[in-house]
Amino acid sequence: MANGLHVAVVGATGAVGQQMLKTLEERQFPVGQLTLLSSARSAGKTLQFNGKEVVIQEATPDSFKGVDIALFSAGGSISKALAPEAVKRGAIVVDNTSAFRMDENVPLVVPEVNEEDLKAHNGIIANPNCSTIQMVAALEPLRQSYGLKKVLVSTYQAVSGAGAAAINELKEQSQAILDEKEFTPEILPVGSDKKHYQIAFNAIPQIDKFQDNGFTFEEMKMINETKKIMHMPELQVAATCVRLPVVTGHSESVYIELEQSGVTVQEVKQLLAQAPGIVLQDDPENQVYPMPADCVGKRDVFVGRIRKDLDNDKGFHMWIVSDNLLKGAAWNSVQIAESLIKLGIVK
Amino acid sequence: MANGLHVAVVGATGAVGQQMLKTLEERQFPVGQLTLLSSARSAGKTLQFNGKEVVIQEATPDSFKGVDIALFSAGGSISKALAPEAVKRGAIVVDNTSAFRMDENVPLVVPEVNEEDLKAHNGIIANPNCSTIQMVAALEPLRQSYGLKKVLVSTYQAVSGAGAAAINELKEQSQAILDEKEFTPEILPVGSDKKHYQIAFNAIPQIDKFQDNGFTFEEMKMINETKKIMHMPELQVAATCVRLPVVTGHSESVYIELEQSGVTVQEVKQLLAQAPGIVLQDDPENQVYPMPADCVGKRDVFVGRIRKDLDNDKGFHMWIVSDNLLKGAAWNSVQIAESLIKLGIVK
Repeated sequence: MANGLHVAVVGATGAVGQQMLKTLEERQFPVGQLTLLSSARSAGKTLQFNGKEVVIQEATPDSFKGVDIALFSAGGSISKALAPEAVKRGAIVVDNTSAFRMDENVPLVVPEVNEEDLKAHNGIIANPNCSTIQMVAALEPLRQSYGLKKVLVSTYQAVSGAGAAAINELKEQSQAILDEKEFTPEILPVGSDKKHYQIAFNAIPQIDKFQDNGFTFEEMKMINETKKIMHMPELQVAATCVRLPVVTGHSESVYIELEQSGVTVQEVKQLLAQAPGIVLQDDPENQVYPMPADCVGKRDVFVGRIRKDLDNDKGFHMWIVSDNLLKGAAWNSVQIAESLIKLGIVK
Repeated sequence: MANGLHVAVVGATGAVGQQMLKTLEERQFPVGQLTLLSSARSAGKTLQFNGKEVVIQEATPDSFKGVDIALFSAGGSISKALAPEAVKRGAIVVDNTSAFRMDENVPLVVPEVNEEDLKAHNGIIANPNCSTIQMVAALEPLRQSYGLKKVLVSTYQAVSGAGAAAINELKEQSQAILDEKEFTPEILPVGSDKKHYQIAFNAIPQIDKFQDNGFTFEEMKMINETKKIMHMPELQVAATCVRLPVVTGHSESVYIELEQSGVTVQEVKQLLAQAPGIVLQDDPENQVYPMPADCVGKRDVFVGRIRKDLDNDKGFHMWIVSDNLLKGAAWNSVQIAESLIKLGIVK
């Protein structure tokens, strides 16, 4: 690694891909060579990295020759097709799609929670769903100290999780409504689903498609991924996922039940104030609490509104906010890459 | 009542007051004489009612002479000062503020839930908090059939609950952000609190001021009012209340635990489909669920996303939406007035 690593970014032009490049720069990640990959449509375009222009190439199996780490964020079908090809050619893949997350041979990693799982990788490492990452990062210190029995989460999710087109839709719709003009929803809640609804000045209780059990895939991702990351198949988890007219920054209203009784709010606050990757913002008297508008561009997970349930001594409520494009996606992926170096898995 | 009732509306020019007049018209409420009252500032202005102009008068104790029913929605301090004066002069007061809600001598009424409590009135009847009303209306049929043990709610509340100035702030801020111009938050989350935050494209986890226990007053209203309306001091209730960039329409992500086990989702749906004041909107396959943008101007409470908890046979999740200015305020007040006639309390 004397001359740095050969890093490939697949889906470089997307909302997350752009944040990956920015994060690699900000973290001064040891990039010796950078390969930017995309669909044929974006090939030939250029992007800036560390002050130099890099030409985007069409992603093919042979694009990964000589690549040390490939960061994938170009949709599940691209990952399914090309991640195994990248591995065959010697790359370690950090995949930001849902393609491999529940594969038992694939570690699903939030470094603050289960960095050690990286050691068991078989070439592909999955980056969890954005709303899962920020929640488990905040809950892990509590699980370690007091045990965790139950998690009930209601999300307040930003449109950037649905991509750049969804951001445009929110902005254009907002302007149309302010101007009292007509508009036709075309993207949200789910581009590929049958119906599309107004997102501006509205709240849509659907993210991703519905499963037969009435939960959406997004909700089931939060449930199943949380259990896998925390190695707690027995953990009780439920989620209601809601899309909001917010550009970036997911918020979560979380209720948890600890195993241990007698824990105080002060103890929970102290624990989270010292936890890696967590910023405690919890001072009700001075109206200090996390908000999506404040978290944009920051890599941390912000936690506030911590209070004990009035009926259950083991129950706590809290409000967890993070930039869904950073800790929820690009930063967690780059952080996994940093852990791979730290653990000596990539040399 | 041959010639109709003498109705007074206190706070006629406010966001809720205007909806009260509209609802009285739509319901063809038997108004024989209408007295519109406000602060000195608005006195002399006129409003339309049933096609006629009515001049607004400054509210004083003697304004209530001869009034049968007085609908108050002009803030807690006005209600505290003038509601007892109205009662002294023979009026029955339906008060939409929080001034008397937890007074044990004052019935707190949602007609679908506890209409009978009106019989024990002492002149003043309290209209519950907007977010409480829609929740208890939806949960009461379940309580009656299966028993209710626990309620955990996370709200998604519209700015119109904070008045007309908050609506303007949301619209002006949204335009400023779309135009990339500077702006200064001045009203939300709480006009009289120390700090004000951006509401456009954001989510603020504070509605009303904070209490010493870390919960906001809005959250404690939901907790205490729910217990009082349902006559269940032992009910376990917790709330997290969040303000969103939505003009009108409160949404609620609600988790409940029933007393009875073995209840199916289908049974819950059937019960709610037949319940008074409730509209079931729950067809995931066809992406049918309630949303605030669809509920505006409607008097019903809309319920969807009903599903059984994956870990607890007695646990259910649901999504409850209603127009906070109508069922949450103006309509529930007029509905109470209709019940007063129906029960023969006002003749």
